[in-house]
This record gives sequence, structure tokens and C-alpha cells, in this order.
Amino acid sequence: MVAELIRQYQARANQALGQRLPAADLHPTDLHQAMRYAVLGGGKRIRPVLVYSAGAATGAVPESLDGPACAVEFIHAYSLIHDDLPAMDNDDLRHGQPSCHKAFGEALAILAGDALQALAFQVLGQDPAMIPDPAVRLRMLDVLALAAGSRGMVGGQAIDLAAVGRELSLVELENMHIHKTGALIRASVLLGALSQPRVEPALLERLDRYAKCIGLAFQIRDDILDVIGDTATLGKTTGTDRALDKPTYPALLGLDGAREHARALYEAALASLEPLGPEVDPLRWIAGYIVERAH
Amino acid sequence: MVAELIRQYQARANQALGQRLPAADLHPTDLHQAMRYAVLGGGKRIRPVLVYSAGAATGAVPESLDGPACAVEFIHAYSLIHDDLPAMDNDDLRHGQPSCHKAFGEALAILAGDALQALAFQVLGQDPAMIPDPAVRLRMLDVLALAAGSRGMVGGQAIDLAAVGRELSLVELENMHIHKTGALIRASVLLGALSQPRVEPALLERLDRYAKCIGLAFQIRDDILDVIGDTATLGKTTGTDRALDKPTYPALLGLDGAREHARALYEAALASLEPLGPEVDPLRWIAGYIVERAH
Repeated sequence: MVAELIRQYQARANQALGQRLPAADLHPTDLHQAMRYAVLGGGKRIRPVLVYSAGAATGAVPESLDGPACAVEFIHAYSLIHDDLPAMDNDDLRHGQPSCHKAFGEALAILAGDALQALAFQVLGQDPAMIPDPAVRLRMLDVLALAAGSRGMVGGQAIDLAAVGRELSLVELENMHIHKTGALIRASVLLGALSQPRVEPALLERLDRYAKCIGLAFQIRDDILDVIGDTATLGKTTGTDRALDKPTYPALLGLDGAREHARALYEAALASLEPLGPEVDPLRWIAGYIVERAH
Repeated sequence: MVAELIRQYQARANQALGQRLPAADLHPTDLHQAMRYAVLGGGKRIRPVLVYSAGAATGAVPESLDGPACAVEFIHAYSLIHDDLPAMDNDDLRHGQPSCHKAFGEALAILAGDALQALAFQVLGQDPAMIPDPAVRLRMLDVLALAAGSRGMVGGQAIDLAAVGRELSLVELENMHIHKTGALIRASVLLGALSQPRVEPALLERLDRYAKCIGLAFQIRDDILDVIGDTATLGKTTGTDRALDKPTYPALLGLDGAREHARALYEAALASLEPLGPEVDPLRWIAGYIVERAH
């Protein structure tokens, strides 16, 4: 039943994203087509689902969550476009299809990423169904801009770049992933929770702790899947971490050690939600999914 | 005397930018150094000067203008980084120095651009000295996000990409530049004006008309300088438009025709300010500078 709710959130996210992306026949059409391709071409919508689930946990109105859900997914989608570029990870495949620069060329892919980042902030500023209180929306802008910037996601990617070919300690590896993946996952939960303007600070703190744990667990699972997964299931090239000589959890802890670490984070995430009721069942479900997922 | 005021605005912008950029020794240091290099390495600060000048025209408090001034300049700086990339204009020189990707590598340059865009929106959300009214700040967010995105600056760059090697009509060329350069120049004037929350709609409209005229004039002068300027004075490679087979005003109208067109836009910009007093003298000065500048 929770799984069905998650599917509904995914469907809702896909619809909301399609509505908020510029139409494919809107000028400049090639740019807008590249943006739509990159966002709508696939993806599990974990971040939007987290926005909806965290919002539901605080009692936010569902309509108020579409804007924040799209904003985080636009940031995520732009980061994948730029990550796949030849100068970065040089990945030809994304969601089982040619990555954006393979389909539209490098120049347009760079621009599509840039425009998606602007669109993310535009949605937070404008979305009519979002909570109208401008102060709350400004706080959301803070959360998203920090999570997306040089002290968040982009900073994590820079740490990643600098780490290629180096030995990292576990602390350094965690620091990299807290920024690279964790920041935006945490922002997803916070934006959902903030959509209910009277959310209690104690609840917000529990959700934030949950978000930090699953954010890191997500990346550990990603590292594991890059070793044990196959390209067909993942829809992206596997084995690239080792090929690029990137530090990973399995490389540092072994496969079993990495699995154990993910499991411990899963338990910590659940513990943070422990006193809460069925309203956080979707969040519990996502935590389980994150450490078990096959893609 | 007005020229002295403009120099003060430039100095103020440089100081404000340095303060709002992450420190060079803040982790991840290479990313933050690349961001600082790209922003502080040079530039005429025309957009921040427009923010200060338009703000002064409406009676805004100077301190409230530093945030918007930095936000537009961060967007401008990120667009130059990405524009110079090998997949885009492939330009090795910017402000008389190696462009960001020549100095820091392509991957870090892409990330520095991405982080500067996030920083622009972060500043609008957080800057403590800005006007506190969240509704006004949200309106500024709207203006900047629209100007920066696929229906503004990035859209203009996509039109530019699609235009390489094609014949454009004057209308198409104008449409390209209204987006590529004009959108952010217009946003600079609007952000300055909106910093005075009780700005009269009629004044806002005059300033907006002024901004549209100088935005286009600016790009025409840019095209002219690419023909008549020299690389040393400009600090960037000249003759690249023709080398890249890009449509330009001189190519379409001839050098004299392009100069005349710029002059007509200058006159229209002044006409829009005509009934206003000495408080818009800096804006008048900037209009003149834009059509006369040698770099």
C-alpha cells in the first residue's frame, strides 16, 4: 500500500515536471527539447518523492508540494547533464538512452543544464500553488541554493574531481558524498517539510536527521551498484568508478563492509522517525528502498 | 563628476563581489579559487553599475543594492565561463588572462559556472542588507530567474548556437540579442529599481524602456568592437565572430549602419529618461559609454 502511494507520487512528479518544463514547441525549441529530454527521459524521482513524503508527514497540502518537488528534480537533472559531459565523467548513457550531449551536442547540453538550474529557482519564486507566504518561499530558496552550490552539490563534485586517483580516508569519502548526493536529498526533505509553515522544529529536526542518513546510504548503494549492477538494469554504464579510478565505499570497506555501513545508516534513519506514526511510513519505505534497490 | 560616481560604483561592486564570493581558502578550495578568478579577474561591472544607478534613480538605499548587484554579476560571470568552453566559443582569453577553463581545466570551469549561478540566487535569498520585504525579494528572484533562463540569457545563447553559419534577418538578430545580452541588462535595471519598494510604476516603465534600448545597443557595440577592436585593448580575442561565421550587426548593416543603429537606440534610451532630473545622470552617462566604449 505504501508502495502504491510512492508510485502515485512518482506519477504526480512526472506530470508536474512536464507541466513546468517549457513546451517542446516553444522558441528556442532545440534548447527546450534538450531540457525536456534530460528531465523526462527517465529517473526514479526519488527527490520529488521525498518532497511529497516529507510534506505529507508534516500535513502539507499536496498541491503546495509540486513546485518544490520540481525544483529539486530540475537541479538534479541539470547536474546529471553536466556530470555526463566529456570533460566530466564522459558518460554516453543515461536512463538507458544517449546522454543529453550525445543526443543534442555538447554546447546545447551545457546550456540545457544551465537553463534547468535557472528554472528550478524560477519555480520556487513563481509556482502559484505553492504556499503563498513569501518568507517561507525565501527560506526554501535559501535551502535549495545552499544545497545546490559550492558548499553543497557542486562542491561535492569538485571534491570528487580532486579525489580521482587519490586514496581517501572514510571521513574524506563521507565528506565528499555528504555534499555531492546528500545535500540535495536533505534539501528535498526540508523543502517538503517547510511546505507546512507551522511545522514543529522538533519534527523538522527528526526529518533532517533521517535525510542525512538516507542521503549517505543512497550514495553507498550507488557505489555498490556500480560494482555489482549491470548496465542494462541501471541504464547507465557500470564499472565506471573503477575505470575512472574514483574512491568508493566498496573500494574502502569491501562490498560486505559497504553493505553493513548502508544498513547501519538505514537503522539510524528509522530510529530518527521511531516515535512518529504511519504518516511517515512513506519515508520509512524510501529508506528501505534506498539500501535495497537494484538500480 | 558622473564618471567619478561610476568609478565609485565599480569599486563598490568589486568590494561587494569579493565579500560575497566564498573565501579562497574555504573547502573545496580549487572550486572557490576558480569562482573568484572568473569573477574578480576583470570586467567593467556594467551590470552592477546599472543596479546602483537605477537604484539611485528611485531613491533606494545604497546598502540594499549590493546584493542584487552581485547577483546579476555572478550570473554574467558564470555565462562567460561556460561561453568560453571549447564546446561553445572555445576562447582562451578573457579580461586579458587565460579563460577559466585554461586556468583551471574544463571540468572545474563547468562546476565554477554552475556554482556561481547558485550563488546568485543564494545572495538574493539571503543578503542581510537587502530590502527585508520577502515579497519584494521574491519578485527580484522572478526577474533574475526569468532573465537568466531559457526564455532569457541562456535562450539567447541557444539561438546564437543555432544561428552559426546561417543568414539571419535583422528581426532574428535582434531577437537573439534581446535574449542573449538584453535580458540580463534589463534585469540589472529592474533589480536596482525594485530595491526601492515604493517605486512608481510609471518610473519603472521608463527605466525598463531605457534598459531595453541600452541592452541592444550594448550588443551592437560588442559586434562592432569584434571588427574594429584589437585583442590587447579588449582583453579577449577579436575577429572571432567572423571566424565562427556568426551573424552580427556589422555583417548585416555594414559598420556605419551598425553605428547608426546603436546611436538611434542611444537616443531612444535618453528620450525615455527625458522628463527625469539629475538623479538619472549616471544612467544617461552609461548609455553614452555603451555606444562609445573601446572595450
